Amino acid sequence: MTDHVLIFDTTLRDGEQSPGATMTHDEKVEIAEMLDEMGVDIIEAGFPIASEGDFNAVSEIAKRSKTAQICGLSRASFKDIDRCWEAVKHSQRPRIHTFIGTSPLHRAIPNLDMDEMAERIHDCVTHARNLCDNVQWSSMDATRTEWDFLKRTVDIAIKAGATTINIPDTVGYTEPVESAGLIRRLIAEVDSADTVIFSTHCHNDLGMATANSLAAVQGGARQIECTINGLGERAGNTALEEVVMALKVRKDIMPFETKVNTRKIMNISRRVATVSGFPVQFNKAIVGKNAFAHESGIHQDGMLKNRETFEVMRPEDVGLAGTTLPLGKHSGRAALRAKLSVLGFEMGDNELKDVFVRFKDLADRKKEVFDDDLIALVRQNNSEDDRLKLKDLTVICGMNGPQKADMVLEIDGKDHATSATGDGPVDATFNAVKSLFAHDARLQLYQVHAVTEGTDAQATVSVRMEEDGRIATGQSADTDTVVASAKAYINALNRLLVRREKTAPGVDTPEIRYTDAGE
Amino acid sequence: MTDHVLIFDTTLRDGEQSPGATMTHDEKVEIAEMLDEMGVDIIEAGFPIASEGDFNAVSEIAKRSKTAQICGLSRASFKDIDRCWEAVKHSQRPRIHTFIGTSPLHRAIPNLDMDEMAERIHDCVTHARNLCDNVQWSSMDATRTEWDFLKRTVDIAIKAGATTINIPDTVGYTEPVESAGLIRRLIAEVDSADTVIFSTHCHNDLGMATANSLAAVQGGARQIECTINGLGERAGNTALEEVVMALKVRKDIMPFETKVNTRKIMNISRRVATVSGFPVQFNKAIVGKNAFAHESGIHQDGMLKNRETFEVMRPEDVGLAGTTLPLGKHSGRAALRAKLSVLGFEMGDNELKDVFVRFKDLADRKKEVFDDDLIALVRQNNSEDDRLKLKDLTVICGMNGPQKADMVLEIDGKDHATSATGDGPVDATFNAVKSLFAHDARLQLYQVHAVTEGTDAQATVSVRMEEDGRIATGQSADTDTVVASAKAYINALNRLLVRREKTAPGVDTPEIRYTDAGE
Repeated sequence: MTDHVLIFDTTLRDGEQSPGATMTHDEKVEIAEMLDEMGVDIIEAGFPIASEGDFNAVSEIAKRSKTAQICGLSRASFKDIDRCWEAVKHSQRPRIHTFIGTSPLHRAIPNLDMDEMAERIHDCVTHARNLCDNVQWSSMDATRTEWDFLKRTVDIAIKAGATTINIPDTVGYTEPVESAGLIRRLIAEVDSADTVIFSTHCHNDLGMATANSLAAVQGGARQIECTINGLGERAGNTALEEVVMALKVRKDIMPFETKVNTRKIMNISRRVATVSGFPVQFNKAIVGKNAFAHESGIHQDGMLKNRETFEVMRPEDVGLAGTTLPLGKHSGRAALRAKLSVLGFEMGDNELKDVFVRFKDLADRKKEVFDDDLIALVRQNNSEDDRLKLKDLTVICGMNGPQKADMVLEIDGKDHATSATGDGPVDATFNAVKSLFAHDARLQLYQVHAVTEGTDAQATVSVRMEEDGRIATGQSADTDTVVASAKAYINALNRLLVRREKTAPGVDTPEIRYTDAGE
Repeated sequence: MTDHVLIFDTTLRDGEQSPGATMTHDEKVEIAEMLDEMGVDIIEAGFPIASEGDFNAVSEIAKRSKTAQICGLSRASFKDIDRCWEAVKHSQRPRIHTFIGTSPLHRAIPNLDMDEMAERIHDCVTHARNLCDNVQWSSMDATRTEWDFLKRTVDIAIKAGATTINIPDTVGYTEPVESAGLIRRLIAEVDSADTVIFSTHCHNDLGMATANSLAAVQGGARQIECTINGLGERAGNTALEEVVMALKVRKDIMPFETKVNTRKIMNISRRVATVSGFPVQFNKAIVGKNAFAHESGIHQDGMLKNRETFEVMRPEDVGLAGTTLPLGKHSGRAALRAKLSVLGFEMGDNELKDVFVRFKDLADRKKEVFDDDLIALVRQNNSEDDRLKLKDLTVICGMNGPQKADMVLEIDGKDHATSATGDGPVDATFNAVKSLFAHDARLQLYQVHAVTEGTDAQATVSVRMEEDGRIATGQSADTDTVVASAKAYINALNRLLVRREKTAPGVDTPEIRYTDAGE
């Protein structure tokens, strides 16, 4: 058996499915490019039949993919599988993933008995295999499926031509000994098990997804399904960064290889946190702000005689810059470019020029510009083509309400001014935008992060809005929280306007989710 | 062997040690009371010799403890152990915990050879045992210690009278098979191993702390060391809520008992997140906002025919209220009291009166008052005795800086007014406070959380300040972010002033940390 473990990333499918984590088309394409570049073997790019938006994202990602296999999800129906193929076929290395819930609770949903389900699996895998020679079959809720039936369905899927068999712990219910044992027993008892790759897909409801995935590999699985930051429904999926780093650090007892470039981890982690609006907690393994003690604690003690005393990994291994010397107002363009490169941002001259202007503006107001400040700067998503631009804003707030915002907003090239009140400065500001540019978009998320320490810290504000099922996220950073809020709101609105033009109302809403309604 | 697993909580020692998570005296006492009440067996309340503050907190917690054993940490020196005993002896059930780093890297720090270290262990455990009949000994970095030496030191500690032997995975390096194997082998090969309790203490650097702790129990450990929310240095410690819930949910394959009342989990999780300033990520197992799908995702689909299909635990099991019907401006005091009780807050009439006033004020400004709004309200830490009170605040901010704050502050009963500018509304506000009441306190942390959805959401602001080694945290919630910021800052300052009176400068700084400098 090979010692290569395939990394199957499902940030864009299972991760994107977590309530509130919806990403835009462009964000999905960007994340897919980052995954491809970091050496992920298979990217599950979406659930093509779920919505027009999902279909378009999977198609686009398939077209752009360089090395990674591009996979789409489909339920156990020909219509789903056909739609999936239409999207992934543009890839040089397409994969169709079809699944059905095999446990008693899941069999009850489409109301199929065991024989009917067995037949359905055979038909669907055969159909998929006629379209594509790379077919993955999953038995949803495998860990709660009767052993005899699980074995029977896996056997059928292999005979029908599946090339990968995925054994999901859909409810995050298993533990490592059980996880390893299940895969080991399947490989031992199912005919022709050695002709396919077994895969593990764990959820983190009891906090054991990483250990369960690695145990499955020790039991014979050679594909781990995971997401960046462990994004996913409920407590999320197995975190890519954890399994990849654990395999690297404990090669002595887990002699397996992945081809992920671990130095790309921090950058994609930050990006996924940003676009999903799911922040990573300080004490998150590998990618949390505190994951490497040297950053804040032990250094201060000055007691660390030997780095290995408290560290099993080096921060550089996950792409954390070894040095965090801040830039200042006298730093030039070359210094900025060098620093951005260390942080994982390679940019063209035009883009750099734009960032440099914002950097200078910030450095004028803030003594030291830290790495996190720079990341916030780069992440601002303004565009020349924006229909709405904030020209002026003055807000009066405090204990003598109502709070009031005076705003000048450029709409399609023409300035409009208003004055609006509200409950708090942010409410007043958003009301001003609404009165100048009427819209029905609903605020889904409003988040403020202080980027660095000190009262003159930049605040990064994320705003997610929804209108007729279309979702857009905007971000902005400023030392003035209220200005950052206004800009983030306007950013989100600009992006929503683009989406309004491109799609009919409602078509972007995934009305079909990862449940097995069957047909 | 008993099937009872002791839960040893070290939120107040190893958790509090995470860079930036420092808690105040009162917060430690409060958390200890909550731990005691929820059925934790042993509370590690601090590291008495580390600072005067730590000593006082451990003493106070020891005095107040009802059921739990109260434990203090000490390095391998008589002075440490004596100091520890002075603090824990007030408890009805005191425990002394003494440790030394046994791995090659840690032995190098005090520069002891194996024989010298063995002697030191013998002497220290004997000394501790002469003071207290409940002594825990830990071999720091046990998982990287040579087997023969580990076995030898454990044997010595038992012979010297240790009643609990803790085997820490200090760097978060092990995996479950190894973790179970180590405990199993120690129990099999060390003389009199059956006369003591073996304990596991895991760190989460590779994301496997929970699985490693449970594996250790399967290997024979009967004490798990853990923290609320997995708080702790780097990627933190084993999360109490994860091991406790996993043992409850998978009793079929892990037939062990704890006496933790799981319904208290959510409330203490929220409280620890608040006082430590370490937020819990949405997709955190058990206690994350998204941990129970029913809250946001699956409900919307309307596809969930059977709750067990996607849930292995019920939200009620961890203390999440089944219903989240919001209160409004017409809700009375009885409704408020009932709702607060569901959320875990039992309060006297006076306290309720105070919260009711704030609730009415909020309900006038906000259509619906959600559970999270209420929690924020209750958590505000104002006091009649505060030296500083915010009487009036008007802030002008926006794109035409400098931002300006007009403030009236009551200082020791007398009003003072000023006008200050700054870089952003928060900076201007903080500058106004500084100009009215001069101080050298440094802002360590400034956090904003939008409590609920909508632009009229309350913002909760946390501010942590440090002055001469003393640390204080203040919080406030308001629909106006700037007002919440000002109040939180003033709260923190008030608490710092109390501490300034009570302690000499510097004495509160833990200059000794969890490193083994020896003597």
